[in-house]
Amino acid sequence: MLVIDQLIAEINRKSSPIVVGLDPEVEHIPTPIKDEMVRQFGPTTRAAAEAIYHFNAALLDEIHLLVPAVKLQMACYELYEAEGLSAFRRTVERAKKLGLMVIDDSKRNDIGHTASIYARGHLGRTPLIDGTTETVKPDFLTINPYLGSDTIDPFVSVCQEHNKGLFILVRTSNPSAGEYQEATVEGIPLFHRIALDIEKRGSTLIGKNGFSPLGAVVGATWPEEAALLRSAMPSSYFLVPGYGTQGGTAEQVINSFNEKGYGALINSSRGIMYAYRQSQSGNSPSDFAGDAARAVQAMRDDLLHTLSQAGKLPANW
Amino acid sequence: MLVIDQLIAEINRKSSPIVVGLDPEVEHIPTPIKDEMVRQFGPTTRAAAEAIYHFNAALLDEIHLLVPAVKLQMACYELYEAEGLSAFRRTVERAKKLGLMVIDDSKRNDIGHTASIYARGHLGRTPLIDGTTETVKPDFLTINPYLGSDTIDPFVSVCQEHNKGLFILVRTSNPSAGEYQEATVEGIPLFHRIALDIEKRGSTLIGKNGFSPLGAVVGATWPEEAALLRSAMPSSYFLVPGYGTQGGTAEQVINSFNEKGYGALINSSRGIMYAYRQSQSGNSPSDFAGDAARAVQAMRDDLLHTLSQAGKLPANW
Repeated sequence: MLVIDQLIAEINRKSSPIVVGLDPEVEHIPTPIKDEMVRQFGPTTRAAAEAIYHFNAALLDEIHLLVPAVKLQMACYELYEAEGLSAFRRTVERAKKLGLMVIDDSKRNDIGHTASIYARGHLGRTPLIDGTTETVKPDFLTINPYLGSDTIDPFVSVCQEHNKGLFILVRTSNPSAGEYQEATVEGIPLFHRIALDIEKRGSTLIGKNGFSPLGAVVGATWPEEAALLRSAMPSSYFLVPGYGTQGGTAEQVINSFNEKGYGALINSSRGIMYAYRQSQSGNSPSDFAGDAARAVQAMRDDLLHTLSQAGKLPANW
Repeated sequence: MLVIDQLIAEINRKSSPIVVGLDPEVEHIPTPIKDEMVRQFGPTTRAAAEAIYHFNAALLDEIHLLVPAVKLQMACYELYEAEGLSAFRRTVERAKKLGLMVIDDSKRNDIGHTASIYARGHLGRTPLIDGTTETVKPDFLTINPYLGSDTIDPFVSVCQEHNKGLFILVRTSNPSAGEYQEATVEGIPLFHRIALDIEKRGSTLIGKNGFSPLGAVVGATWPEEAALLRSAMPSSYFLVPGYGTQGGTAEQVINSFNEKGYGALINSSRGIMYAYRQSQSGNSPSDFAGDAARAVQAMRDDLLHTLSQAGKLPANW
């Protein structure tokens, strides 16, 4: 089954258009996990990376029935170099074993040949001296398209070869997003131009649900642009960051869904991972993973209620 | 001494405006190195990553007196995950021990808080459970600015804290570079707008040679745009990819130098690393590192001759 149809099947199975961001930072990980890792590995890089993995593992075990996918922010893993990439790899393996789709949020970009090396590393196979690796890889990768369409093609090729997908940055959630993304090209804003290029590129790759494996990142903080993009690229699934901590609400993300209630995967990271800091006092939570699961449930209630009010709630949810 | 002044001191000491790209790919590494690594580590990811490190080490030992800096293309290292990052780290350490400046070519980008995590990981210190790491880090990082100026600021902050620098993508060397980079903003092309923003941001950070630590990537394949940018951002050093394999000539990069012969660092990767494939028959070269050094000498002769003809050769070179 095409990767985008696998994602939609999981969204339907769980009646949940939510992706949980696993972007762990050591300072926010519960103290008992950190104490145990320091006991085992000393005050080392290894201990920090293991704390990240164990935190992720506990969250995955608790949330995997509630969401179709998780998104791993690569910055948080490569910060710990070799040890961090090992934590990344093991998190991906555990998530996929639990039936979750995995989005590798790396925002990679480079020209031609180098883009193909990034694509192979993140989504495909790694060339060894003789043969290639067979590691478990994520299902989707985020990429930055601004260097030009010939820098996107190598990623698309590797996706086709290995049944993977992309979420391509179109409109980011930061306050200064419009500064360069709204430059004008052929009479329309640059982000709109990129959206049309992605839609065109994806039009030959559409799966049985009407979506292609070439998705788009569309920030929750820009509801008007989301409405424009939803109609400009009907076959692109949107990965929507910015709900919760960054100020995005269910009302603001509703435009990213199509009339049938599909087409958007709403991300929350800190609001889920660190829910325990709202519900507990101090930094020794007894049930941080349970708190995360309850935060996912509350987010799901919020989104489904808003979808229902907009007349967009899928019948089978 | 400010990092950009350190770079200029090395350029002067070696009379060489050249950066060698260490972007090794296993298929092009000389067979004897690969055979030895497979003998030691079997046909593993470790063997591939060790072959990359040993290839780099031999090149560094031969070229370090001829160039001020090396540039490591991160895609080639993270392809081998944890083992690849270890090869990256050891290459950085060896290069710096040999007196070379190091450019980490990762083209990282993300919004606010995540940008600061990337910056800390690549250029600063990594937070552990208690304290931070003290690893040797590269001197410069390439970043992609297209998400907006508030995504550049966190990188600049970490640079100021740790005396590091950036090369910010302004005009890339790929054929479709103009497609999005020439969108119009306030009546000028986007890449020009970004150049002006970088120049303004760097104007308070200028060192004793008239340059700031905020450099720009300006592709060798666009000489007219290089001339425009050279005058738009006089205090930015240019990292110029595209010489050699991508078709850029000394004549095409001359516009990236200012009238005094400074302001540009010309990169060559494959043309240097794999020079042995031109000078030897077969894939068992006796002196691949010597061939690389001779290719650097030829490139230096070419650039200095062209600088001299343009009346730009610095007197002390």
